[in-house]
Amino acid sequence: MHVESYKSYRQAFEAGRDRMVEDWKTLLRFASISADPARKDACVACAQWLVEYARAMGFEAERIETSGLPVVYGERKGAAAGPTVLYYAHYDVQPVEPLDLWRSAPFEPVLKDGRLYARGAQDNKGQMMYALAAMRTLIQRGECNGPMKIVLEGEEESSGSGLGELLEQGPERFQADVLLVTDTGMDNAGHPAVTMGLRGAVQMEAAVRGAGKDLHSGIHGGVAPNAAHAAAQLVASLHHADGRVAVEDFYNVADPSQEERRLAAGMRLSAADYASIAGVAPLPGETRFTLAERIGFRPCLDVNGLVSGHTGPGVKTIIPGEALLKLSARIVPDQDPEQVLDLLERHLRRHTPSYARLTILRKKSMGPGLRVPLDSPVVATARGVLDRLSDKPTVFRWEGASIPIVAELARVAGATPLLVGFGLEKDNIHAPNESFSLDSMRMGYLYTTGLLSELNRNGWPHA
Amino acid sequence: MHVESYKSYRQAFEAGRDRMVEDWKTLLRFASISADPARKDACVACAQWLVEYARAMGFEAERIETSGLPVVYGERKGAAAGPTVLYYAHYDVQPVEPLDLWRSAPFEPVLKDGRLYARGAQDNKGQMMYALAAMRTLIQRGECNGPMKIVLEGEEESSGSGLGELLEQGPERFQADVLLVTDTGMDNAGHPAVTMGLRGAVQMEAAVRGAGKDLHSGIHGGVAPNAAHAAAQLVASLHHADGRVAVEDFYNVADPSQEERRLAAGMRLSAADYASIAGVAPLPGETRFTLAERIGFRPCLDVNGLVSGHTGPGVKTIIPGEALLKLSARIVPDQDPEQVLDLLERHLRRHTPSYARLTILRKKSMGPGLRVPLDSPVVATARGVLDRLSDKPTVFRWEGASIPIVAELARVAGATPLLVGFGLEKDNIHAPNESFSLDSMRMGYLYTTGLLSELNRNGWPHA
Repeated sequence: MHVESYKSYRQAFEAGRDRMVEDWKTLLRFASISADPARKDACVACAQWLVEYARAMGFEAERIETSGLPVVYGERKGAAAGPTVLYYAHYDVQPVEPLDLWRSAPFEPVLKDGRLYARGAQDNKGQMMYALAAMRTLIQRGECNGPMKIVLEGEEESSGSGLGELLEQGPERFQADVLLVTDTGMDNAGHPAVTMGLRGAVQMEAAVRGAGKDLHSGIHGGVAPNAAHAAAQLVASLHHADGRVAVEDFYNVADPSQEERRLAAGMRLSAADYASIAGVAPLPGETRFTLAERIGFRPCLDVNGLVSGHTGPGVKTIIPGEALLKLSARIVPDQDPEQVLDLLERHLRRHTPSYARLTILRKKSMGPGLRVPLDSPVVATARGVLDRLSDKPTVFRWEGASIPIVAELARVAGATPLLVGFGLEKDNIHAPNESFSLDSMRMGYLYTTGLLSELNRNGWPHA
Repeated sequence: MHVESYKSYRQAFEAGRDRMVEDWKTLLRFASISADPARKDACVACAQWLVEYARAMGFEAERIETSGLPVVYGERKGAAAGPTVLYYAHYDVQPVEPLDLWRSAPFEPVLKDGRLYARGAQDNKGQMMYALAAMRTLIQRGECNGPMKIVLEGEEESSGSGLGELLEQGPERFQADVLLVTDTGMDNAGHPAVTMGLRGAVQMEAAVRGAGKDLHSGIHGGVAPNAAHAAAQLVASLHHADGRVAVEDFYNVADPSQEERRLAAGMRLSAADYASIAGVAPLPGETRFTLAERIGFRPCLDVNGLVSGHTGPGVKTIIPGEALLKLSARIVPDQDPEQVLDLLERHLRRHTPSYARLTILRKKSMGPGLRVPLDSPVVATARGVLDRLSDKPTVFRWEGASIPIVAELARVAGATPLLVGFGLEKDNIHAPNESFSLDSMRMGYLYTTGLLSELNRNGWPHA
């Protein structure tokens, strides 16, 4: 990026800022919680708004219906030859419970001290909005003449299969050279980061039954099996005391390469840093890896939800007849999602106490893990843009989170994935009081304009 | 009881049946769930209705306010000398969740095939209604001339302390010779039963914290402690694999006497019987006792509720920051409730994983256990009435359930407790679709008329 265009994009950002904030707020007012069937209308309305937004930007855009929530798809042929950029984002958001911990309503965005507070403010509506605003600027200024595609899905947070269906039906429309994703973060010291890896995920839901119905704890206590006890035994069997997963063959994966480990050292996450971020000391875990390596290169397993018996106010002296268990594993690229689900199911079946019955209610892959080759030229381009944007050196990150469809989309598109985002821990994604700062929006905007104009100017540096 | 009066009470039951059913239904329409603060008005209205009902019967009755829910108290001096009978019952009911398992609305009683379906149909509104109807018959016919008292509380199901406060404030009004309670059951083969023992109970609520807030399971998975895992470890530590309680000193109680064990053998509860009642095989447990002895003479410990993380529909990939745990122990007469609470707290503190924090939110005695002396004359009288009522021999029962205040009320009243009730397992108390049959109502009515007229005729057989 040339110094003059950097200045001019900065000016363009300031000039368009108020409109961008208004658009961002409008986007955030859609309560597009994909996990909640009652919010389907809000999701559809959000998708429709994005279709119109993309058309106004100059895309031929449409809302494609799926068996789940609609996908927004747009194309712009472009006047010049050049690499095809496919931009991916998701318009759906996480649920908002517990509501009483929010300081303002999750779908009524509030701007305070340079941060916008709302569910989705960062993940992914904020990071989508700076990217769209950047594309709009370039299109308006005639500085983006290569072919562009956008795909905005609505089931990222709920592991829905709408976009997956489209990938299966007709992969042609997704063909691209680079898959641009802005759903990732910086490092905790504020270094720009290129995400070189994502974990995949699998999810499972199971019921554990004792008597199948709640029993009176006086009449039956001391004799009847208790489903909460059974579920607890089962959950307790999943991990060793130090936090390592106890499921057989679970860690049957390759270690990161020496070069990956060397670069991952830039992620700099000490136990003390971690404690200050998470509010709790890290688990002892796999001591032969650093914390960052454990998150980036190792699979993990967590119970996401567990409920049994009476959990409302007051006392109800029952022996719970049933327990519900939701769990998910994060997996790395050399793990097959279905195989991991089989390992988990086998473990659960083996460890269900003899007095209880286990029923697997749901078993689902949310997508495999992703790893970007260290020698990819587009990564080098992005790194150059980031290095000029910040006085802090760019780091490479292997993230623990998943963007379920990205690995599959990159494969179908035949594109090199480029994952750069500006999220920070304090944005509180997936938690109450999610927010995103205008400073982060500016940085994201400058990165996107810089990257696209660079690709546009130089053409696709085919490896 | 003489054969002619037995016949005449049977006729009186039939003549008054329709009115009794109407009154019973009216009583059941009050949604008097004492555990739910939102139902306080329904509880108070229910108490007021009972005050008026008692006045119509001929009692001087009042609604006594407490720091919790009101107590209905009534007295009838009586024309003749005789033993003072204090009748105890409770007008509050258990919560109704899960609502979707009810075939009819819990507070809209439905009579079907000789059974009335509603929350409280048996426990304790049904068993209260036959007793009140029986007293009314005797008073109307002038066959109950001894002094009578009634005390109907509203916090039995929620371990509230309203009646306990009244017992502390002025024990005089409760003085009596016999404390009549109809909140118990028959045996499973339909034998009339005198309940000779009840377990007491203690209750505890605790929070288990990991990070204290929910964390993104991708960003933190493999490093952050999980409160659901910690709670599961804690719950799993409470019992051995065979179901025996693993809390140190928990079983530090005396065995039942040889005579008690001989009589308890009449409770006849085989593993096969149990499985057909509970829908599940009994736990192996303490093998040196029979199932009935484990329920009647041994303490036990159950988790009543456990919740952590996302338990609603759909997927939320979080690491839960907190878990809530509700548990209760049933205790026997030689256990001090406070001491048991201390044992439990000590165990929980010792077994909390090092990465988690435990907070005890609530620790409460719901009352000690009760045991009636085997040689009590009033028990012999009741047994005689029951033997004439049924062609099945009367059995003695040591029940596992608690009627929290009864042990304390008997002590303050200076009265011998007499616990005879007609509940059956199929009544589904504390569960969806609670019901009680008209046949049981008739038997309860005939027992109460028989017993009171016997006591009235013979005077109190002072031991």
